[in-house]
Amino acid sequence: MNSPLPPPALTRRELLSGLAGIGAGATLAACGNSPLPDAGAASNLSESTEVVVIGAGLAGLMAARELVAAGKQVLVLEARDRVGGRTLNHPVTAAGAKPGTVVEVGGQWVGPTQDLVLKTIADLGLETFKTYSTGNYLDHRDGLSLQYGHLFPVDPLNLGLNRLPPTDPVGAAEAAVAIQRLNSMAAEVPLDRPWTAGNAVAWDSQTFQTWIDANVLSPGGQALLQLTIESVFSAQPRDLSLLHVLFYIHSAGSLDNLINTENGAQDSRIVGGSQRISIGLAEPLRDRIRFNRVVRDVAYDAEGVTVAGAGFSVRAQRAILALSPTLAGRMRYTPPLGGLRDQLTQRLPMGTVIKVQCVYPTPFWRDAGLNGQVTSDTGPVKITFDNSPPDGHIGVMMGFIEGEDGRKALAWTPEQRRQGTIDSFVRYFGEAAAAPLEYIEQSWSEEEFSRGCYAGYFPPGVWLDYGEALRQPIGPLHWAGTETAEIWNGYFDGALRSGQRAAAEVLASL
Amino acid sequence: MNSPLPPPALTRRELLSGLAGIGAGATLAACGNSPLPDAGAASNLSESTEVVVIGAGLAGLMAARELVAAGKQVLVLEARDRVGGRTLNHPVTAAGAKPGTVVEVGGQWVGPTQDLVLKTIADLGLETFKTYSTGNYLDHRDGLSLQYGHLFPVDPLNLGLNRLPPTDPVGAAEAAVAIQRLNSMAAEVPLDRPWTAGNAVAWDSQTFQTWIDANVLSPGGQALLQLTIESVFSAQPRDLSLLHVLFYIHSAGSLDNLINTENGAQDSRIVGGSQRISIGLAEPLRDRIRFNRVVRDVAYDAEGVTVAGAGFSVRAQRAILALSPTLAGRMRYTPPLGGLRDQLTQRLPMGTVIKVQCVYPTPFWRDAGLNGQVTSDTGPVKITFDNSPPDGHIGVMMGFIEGEDGRKALAWTPEQRRQGTIDSFVRYFGEAAAAPLEYIEQSWSEEEFSRGCYAGYFPPGVWLDYGEALRQPIGPLHWAGTETAEIWNGYFDGALRSGQRAAAEVLASL
Repeated sequence: MNSPLPPPALTRRELLSGLAGIGAGATLAACGNSPLPDAGAASNLSESTEVVVIGAGLAGLMAARELVAAGKQVLVLEARDRVGGRTLNHPVTAAGAKPGTVVEVGGQWVGPTQDLVLKTIADLGLETFKTYSTGNYLDHRDGLSLQYGHLFPVDPLNLGLNRLPPTDPVGAAEAAVAIQRLNSMAAEVPLDRPWTAGNAVAWDSQTFQTWIDANVLSPGGQALLQLTIESVFSAQPRDLSLLHVLFYIHSAGSLDNLINTENGAQDSRIVGGSQRISIGLAEPLRDRIRFNRVVRDVAYDAEGVTVAGAGFSVRAQRAILALSPTLAGRMRYTPPLGGLRDQLTQRLPMGTVIKVQCVYPTPFWRDAGLNGQVTSDTGPVKITFDNSPPDGHIGVMMGFIEGEDGRKALAWTPEQRRQGTIDSFVRYFGEAAAAPLEYIEQSWSEEEFSRGCYAGYFPPGVWLDYGEALRQPIGPLHWAGTETAEIWNGYFDGALRSGQRAAAEVLASL
Repeated sequence: MNSPLPPPALTRRELLSGLAGIGAGATLAACGNSPLPDAGAASNLSESTEVVVIGAGLAGLMAARELVAAGKQVLVLEARDRVGGRTLNHPVTAAGAKPGTVVEVGGQWVGPTQDLVLKTIADLGLETFKTYSTGNYLDHRDGLSLQYGHLFPVDPLNLGLNRLPPTDPVGAAEAAVAIQRLNSMAAEVPLDRPWTAGNAVAWDSQTFQTWIDANVLSPGGQALLQLTIESVFSAQPRDLSLLHVLFYIHSAGSLDNLINTENGAQDSRIVGGSQRISIGLAEPLRDRIRFNRVVRDVAYDAEGVTVAGAGFSVRAQRAILALSPTLAGRMRYTPPLGGLRDQLTQRLPMGTVIKVQCVYPTPFWRDAGLNGQVTSDTGPVKITFDNSPPDGHIGVMMGFIEGEDGRKALAWTPEQRRQGTIDSFVRYFGEAAAAPLEYIEQSWSEEEFSRGCYAGYFPPGVWLDYGEALRQPIGPLHWAGTETAEIWNGYFDGALRSGQRAAAEVLASL
């Protein structure tokens, strides 16, 4: 009989390879003192600590760092054999790529006002560089491509028109006005309790698509708003509560912050790849991180908590669950969680994105005066970025297959996804894009320990009736993860802030 | 250290008590030949069969019956110590109640056009009786209660006005027109593929609240539509896709069918309690049902499937997962399920309802000429029914705390729920309701193996992008449960039909 269970205990070698697998660019060596002994298949690795953290993504690692700094004993349990969660460096192996060249197949950018992640990057001695933005943008619409730089230099109302493609000036102007309206509405949403906004009931009773239909009249303006939502949430406007969109805008400061490259959320990249933030946070914690620990059971009472999976268990006074609500909802809790918390986790689905990248001998689009940033009405890839390494010694074109396109592509063969990506790149950059040296793809909804990206989102009605349960601790259980953040929810910065907040909760309670 | 895991093996006694716990009114004796040996704590109960069914609710039991009738070996794994899923008989123990008197704390009604459940009831030798409807309805609005019978005897347009409370004639008339419009729209939704309806994109892009706001103008009409949705879905109009509401109406034949008592979905009850359907289906399967088996792992390949939990595993050629999508999504699959199926299970939350019942010496409201059926604008109980036993030897008043009210009440103490219920009953039926002999409550979202009632529902956008994954088998895995039904989705009849359909899929594949 085939056992559906993974091996009940991990060998020393597996643990070490877990640490070694921490990602390209890691400064951790593949050797070190593992605190865990070898164990036979029948034994159960039991440990105890003061605080157990589930998840070694940015939220969990920040929480662990804060707790260790406060003198607490901490163990971090990670389901994968690596740190970083939805950040992951991937080596570029194409001919001509310098050794150590990586691209990120998960989250990758940071930008102004993301103060905690910027500080963390500086503290870790990492460096950032600007996302490539020299040259013209390209907009593809109705079968035609148009390059543009700043065709709206005159913007007397300060609508941010120079950010929008001028292919359809009426649509761009209408979208710009809509964006300013959304910014104003968003400012009315309290970040700590969105459901208390004056218009919360009206805003949480409709989809964002309903708002577009009622407030944006031109097809071009509607298309721009839809593409904006797809690129920010990797979901369709019909999937999202208007209240959630407004919360998210306020959480990031403005919709401009969310969609802009320069001075926005896509402003800068991390030298060596964004996973180095997690790797850097993990390094001083290396003896406290356990890899390949898929937590399945969480038993808790007033005295503490025991978390367990196949072949291991950890007893602690407090637990921080630093993973998305939908994944937290899959564990079995003893006693069972209350109805509000459980039903919350039934209602926060993850976005859908396949991140695709093609490696070329050079970033040839730069020679044509293009910055590599495309907006398009035609999929599967409707958004692209130049994702070449800092020195541009090879060219990397990156695109997103998002929302509805991403869901359709889940049924495609690997070759269909590859060809669909290349067809899109050829459409925007010509025949030179037809023969990449390497094709790199990451489909986050197919990752067992993420099940979607960029983040969990709120459909209509969920903030109103379930918002209270998002961060509320339950006995010794505390909730982290970027979905719980007030500032930069859904981003690295929000993840780190959520880890800080959960650690502070735990410290206050011990 | 406390282990979070349940005992790894079940004793003979536990198995037998599981069978005995099958519910009041059960015809099964508490003795019998258990096919399972006693086993020590360290052993693993392994069995093999041709088809394993997960879940002994109506869907799973019907699937098992069909497979056994076709000569297949079947094992049914049930997480609880009883059959019936979201149906559950509860003994009435108040002084004066005859021995064996039960009320249902879960689903309870059947009605015309629910052909499969009616046939099953007849096949099992069970009897039905009419829901008590003699006398006047009561509508409570703006602080006033109004009794009514048929104040709209003249209904020249055949709008069904005599079904609606006349407290606000304009509102009632507008609601009646809206219901007819919804019936017409619903007829355009293909039951097998709702996302292919001509207006599917528009209808799945908005909440039902948006449709109400745009199409029903009077406050009274809006309130009636909202109450209709709450009582049918145990969710708010803002939670639901308009397309899903239309699908659900078509699935039941008409919105009239969904909301009517006489000749509608609340037409009749089962003598001895609705759980007797499951108990009757289970009786010939008793050697094939394993209780207290919480399936956590599903490993599958082209050869078959192994399902397992703490202390047990079952190997089979095919598996039928007869439980709600949200619960199916909590198991761990090896290999991991594809992204579309997994993300579907992130997007089908369960409704929220607390079913409350008070037992009185007599059904005293009948003496006042009331049939016990209330509609109200004031919670926590906004809908009530006379749920007395067939002979009325005691009085049972039943109510639902649904949707937003149900979610708020999850934070209440048991005493607050009890008092809130009694306060509502006193509001409608006077001081005679103030001192029940017994208070009976079931909060389905707090049940670990249901996590909500009446059923899983579709928020906006889900039918369009994920509908294909609802019933699509994956290798040897087949999906059942009322959420997968085309006819009477969400009801007993749909559950049974889904079991038949899944069994037919398996038989065709073996």
